[in-house]
Amino acid sequence: MTSMQLGLIGLGKMGGNMRERIRRAGHTVVGYDRNPELSDVEDLAALVGQLQAPRTVWVMVPAGAPTQSVVDELGGLLEAGDTVVDGGNSRWTDDEKHAAELGAKGIGFVDAGVSGGVWGLENGYALMVGGETEHVERLQPIFEALKPEGPYGYVHAGKVGAGHFSKMVHNGIEYAMMQAYAEGWELLEKVDSVENVREVFRSWQEGTVIRSWLLDLAVDALDEDPHLDKLRGYAEDSGEGRWTVEAAIDNAVPLPAITASLFARFASRQDDSPQMKMIAALRNQFGGHAVESAEK
Amino acid sequence: MTSMQLGLIGLGKMGGNMRERIRRAGHTVVGYDRNPELSDVEDLAALVGQLQAPRTVWVMVPAGAPTQSVVDELGGLLEAGDTVVDGGNSRWTDDEKHAAELGAKGIGFVDAGVSGGVWGLENGYALMVGGETEHVERLQPIFEALKPEGPYGYVHAGKVGAGHFSKMVHNGIEYAMMQAYAEGWELLEKVDSVENVREVFRSWQEGTVIRSWLLDLAVDALDEDPHLDKLRGYAEDSGEGRWTVEAAIDNAVPLPAITASLFARFASRQDDSPQMKMIAALRNQFGGHAVESAEK
Amino acid sequence: MTSMQLGLIGLGKMGGNMRERIRRAGHTVVGYDRNPELSDVEDLAALVGQLQAPRTVWVMVPAGAPTQSVVDELGGLLEAGDTVVDGGNSRWTDDEKHAAELGAKGIGFVDAGVSGGVWGLENGYALMVGGETEHVERLQPIFEALKPEGPYGYVHAGKVGAGHFSKMVHNGIEYAMMQAYAEGWELLEKVDSVENVREVFRSWQEGTVIRSWLLDLAVDALDEDPHLDKLRGYAEDSGEGRWTVEAAIDNAVPLPAITASLFARFASRQDDSPQMKMIAALRNQFGGHAVESAEK
Amino acid sequence: MTSMQLGLIGLGKMGGNMRERIRRAGHTVVGYDRNPELSDVEDLAALVGQLQAPRTVWVMVPAGAPTQSVVDELGGLLEAGDTVVDGGNSRWTDDEKHAAELGAKGIGFVDAGVSGGVWGLENGYALMVGGETEHVERLQPIFEALKPEGPYGYVHAGKVGAGHFSKMVHNGIEYAMMQAYAEGWELLEKVDSVENVREVFRSWQEGTVIRSWLLDLAVDALDEDPHLDKLRGYAEDSGEGRWTVEAAIDNAVPLPAITASLFARFASRQDDSPQMKMIAALRNQFGGHAVESAEK
Repeated sequence: MTSMQLGLIGLGKMGGNMRERIRRAGHTVVGYDRNPELSDVEDLAALVGQLQAPRTVWVMVPAGAPTQSVVDELGGLLEAGDTVVDGGNSRWTDDEKHAAELGAKGIGFVDAGVSGGVWGLENGYALMVGGETEHVERLQPIFEALKPEGPYGYVHAGKVGAGHFSKMVHNGIEYAMMQAYAEGWELLEKVDSVENVREVFRSWQEGTVIRSWLLDLAVDALDEDPHLDKLRGYAEDSGEGRWTVEAAIDNAVPLPAITASLFARFASRQDDSPQMKMIAALRNQFGGHAVESAEK
Repeated sequence: MTSMQLGLIGLGKMGGNMRERIRRAGHTVVGYDRNPELSDVEDLAALVGQLQAPRTVWVMVPAGAPTQSVVDELGGLLEAGDTVVDGGNSRWTDDEKHAAELGAKGIGFVDAGVSGGVWGLENGYALMVGGETEHVERLQPIFEALKPEGPYGYVHAGKVGAGHFSKMVHNGIEYAMMQAYAEGWELLEKVDSVENVREVFRSWQEGTVIRSWLLDLAVDALDEDPHLDKLRGYAEDSGEGRWTVEAAIDNAVPLPAITASLFARFASRQDDSPQMKMIAALRNQFGGHAVESAEK
Repeated sequence: MTSMQLGLIGLGKMGGNMRERIRRAGHTVVGYDRNPELSDVEDLAALVGQLQAPRTVWVMVPAGAPTQSVVDELGGLLEAGDTVVDGGNSRWTDDEKHAAELGAKGIGFVDAGVSGGVWGLENGYALMVGGETEHVERLQPIFEALKPEGPYGYVHAGKVGAGHFSKMVHNGIEYAMMQAYAEGWELLEKVDSVENVREVFRSWQEGTVIRSWLLDLAVDALDEDPHLDKLRGYAEDSGEGRWTVEAAIDNAVPLPAITASLFARFASRQDDSPQMKMIAALRNQFGGHAVESAEK
Repeated sequence: MTSMQLGLIGLGKMGGNMRERIRRAGHTVVGYDRNPELSDVEDLAALVGQLQAPRTVWVMVPAGAPTQSVVDELGGLLEAGDTVVDGGNSRWTDDEKHAAELGAKGIGFVDAGVSGGVWGLENGYALMVGGETEHVERLQPIFEALKPEGPYGYVHAGKVGAGHFSKMVHNGIEYAMMQAYAEGWELLEKVDSVENVREVFRSWQEGTVIRSWLLDLAVDALDEDPHLDKLRGYAEDSGEGRWTVEAAIDNAVPLPAITASLFARFASRQDDSPQMKMIAALRNQFGGHAVESAEK
């Protein structure tokens, strides 16, 4: 495999590990981060200056304004024939905008959804890529370095935006799968006859229809804290779950399980539920049903 | 209208008011309650003894074991040609059983779903009735006394069980209607630009598609407590909501909105959500996402 | 009440009836429509020319591009001190944009959510209004003309956007209420013991918790077609239901019943369900379960 | 490992393969099936006659009446010290009843949820077992023969009923996981920019959070029929999904994703949706919205 030069912007938990994995594969990475202790260069101009044309620059910064700002700055620093990859969690609709802005200057654009979390450095990152074939092919050695060994873990999903769209749907599916195990676990924990829920989960890791990596992680979590007593039932959500539902609405696709999973997270973050106050108030109005005071 | 004699068993909040409304219509009611201060007679035998054959006895006690016990005792005290009405909140499947038990002795059985709550004494009770026509017709003067004035508020819905089944579905619909207003109210309260949610609700009472008696009650509740600050978001559920979903499952009918409303009540009663602990645990396992301690 | 002059743009089913109702109240309406047979003037310039400053122009055209185009044109024709009302179904986010665009020229902006459908001409239109008090007050005589008689049917809900936001939530609630009745109706129709579902619905019109105008309409529909045999189970959705869910997602508010209602409409429009093909395929893969051919 | 004798009742697709796998492990199986071509003996009496006390008999027939009938007959043929295993898909509530009936005669009872489908013969069956330890331990050699190799695939989950309860929850989780992939797949198929949905699914098989055996099966299905054009979106449901929701209702546990998955299957089997007819009828009543004729 040919050794490549890559500019990499954003060296946080994800970006830092990716730099390491790409270097292990024999490529040259010039990394930039706002934190000078992590950065190989002083600024983006210096990063671009160290790369030979045609250059390839991978952007790995938070979605939204930070990514927009980097794309804008790269638009002024790079030249026709160069290529920018957005490997962050951008919304797919941003990709089309970025591709158009850079394309006007002859700069190629590729979007890459990246999965792997804390396990990626060792096991590889799953990559879902969107863009024109000529731009995607140029990146192939880097994609090979990042992806897991074996036949899976990489796809050129389609046009610009298709990479982030696929990663977004991946996360939507992830929400509903996690919710599936969580619902089942709560029900098992609630029933007296089932005395060993953790061992039930462990047993499912082979021979069942529902075996999966998430199930393995659930067993790991239960080994650390058998009834999850140490945790609060509180779950954040990232943009991808919300965007998945919005994309479904745009396309008139019903997503009942994924949406239920998103709403369960919203509800988990409320100290008290305003809508259930209204339910309590109405029950009291028509039936004289008792209500509980907020001060309780 | 002919004046009738009625035995009425159970003189609680509902039963006591019903006795009053029936008496106001000129009928004779012999009431029995376990509480001697409410009761007109000492026991069921005395109640039956005061009625002339063919007797009509209305049972207004809690569903399940209490109703079963009264039906059993009446089976021993009444005789062929008499009629029992179950006006409590029995599950429709119990009705078929009770009708068969009493029918074996020639005693008729009618089930009556009763809606009206604290407003029934003055406004009348909506009645949904199931049973054979000959038994239902005998009760007509009592139904007339209980129902609201005007053409609505009474239906002979069908065979034995149809009354309670209809009332059960009424309550299932009620769950989802309450949830509809509650969801809308929470969303309006959340948004800065809407400065006067109570007045928005009030305005909807005329000219809109969503005007209803429940909406009127929501406005009353908001007049007492404009942001429902005094309440906790905690809602009980009665059997009917659960039975509605179970009946839907038995009949393979999808009930997404009603079921979502039932589940929202379940969740409102949990101090912490076990299933969201599992979600938090999984997010931590694969992504190193922060969790919140249960001790917080 | 002072007689006012109003420019009204868009004289379709809604706009035409509104012109009639405003005129009946004694105000002067100069109407414009692209259809010359409906229009009082030749173009917007003529409409503006017929009004005395400070002018008030009510826009009643489809949301999105058509409204944007009229707002743009009015921005060029009106002058400081004039006021534009958007009474169409615009998304609340458009209101802020329109208010800013017109405000830069000293032109006031008010958004008005209008409910009433085919019943509005006779019964009045419910109005939910957003905007600054000085602009809203100027419109008061028109709002009085349009709204139903009595104390309800009009609210100044808050700042610019609050009118359309409130109307949007109204429609979201409407979705879930309709779904509630629809689910209950299907379940009742499915069960043998309930022999007269239409009469059950009719009886609910008085004395029940779920009495409402929508219930009255359901009875009207069942009187025309007792089992709705003539209809296909196919329901469109307008923008407001989708926007309600999107607004909820933006604000992390769980809306399970409203969203379920929206998804039920999406599913009703699919000839075959792609996601259920995948379910069938998976069941076949792991269990050898039979599948049905698409050609059937 | 000691060689054991086992009576096995029900030699259909599951039971027949299980007999084969147990025999391969060196145990003696006397099988009975109503179909004489499959059966080793003429009737249950002959089966019991060929086993030495203390006997162990595994029942592998459909849940409900068929299982009840076999349990009843075994109750008359077996004697104190023998053990019956119900490995079918019985509802956990039946287990307690069967254990009590047999226990009155000194016969032990064990319930075993069995997962494995068409893959079980080669890969082993996952087993979730409920019952008293003394009865479960006696079965250990058979469980060892049936389960997959390695540390997983077997659990003594708890008391009588815990095995079937765990298997039931396994299936509930399975419903929501399948729905998760199905929703994601439909959304990806709907969007133009994603040109190769099958390859996106394939790529997810390594390095992602959502890798699983079900995902592998989805890829197999897409390899056979890339857009599932040959299938109708029609999915049956077995009892376990329904029972899971009912158990959740009994225990006041919210199961939004699993229930949504069950309802999606119900809806997939309706030629036309009655509830959506009501939605269409209501939209027509209040807004004059067009409806579609059922004859279309």
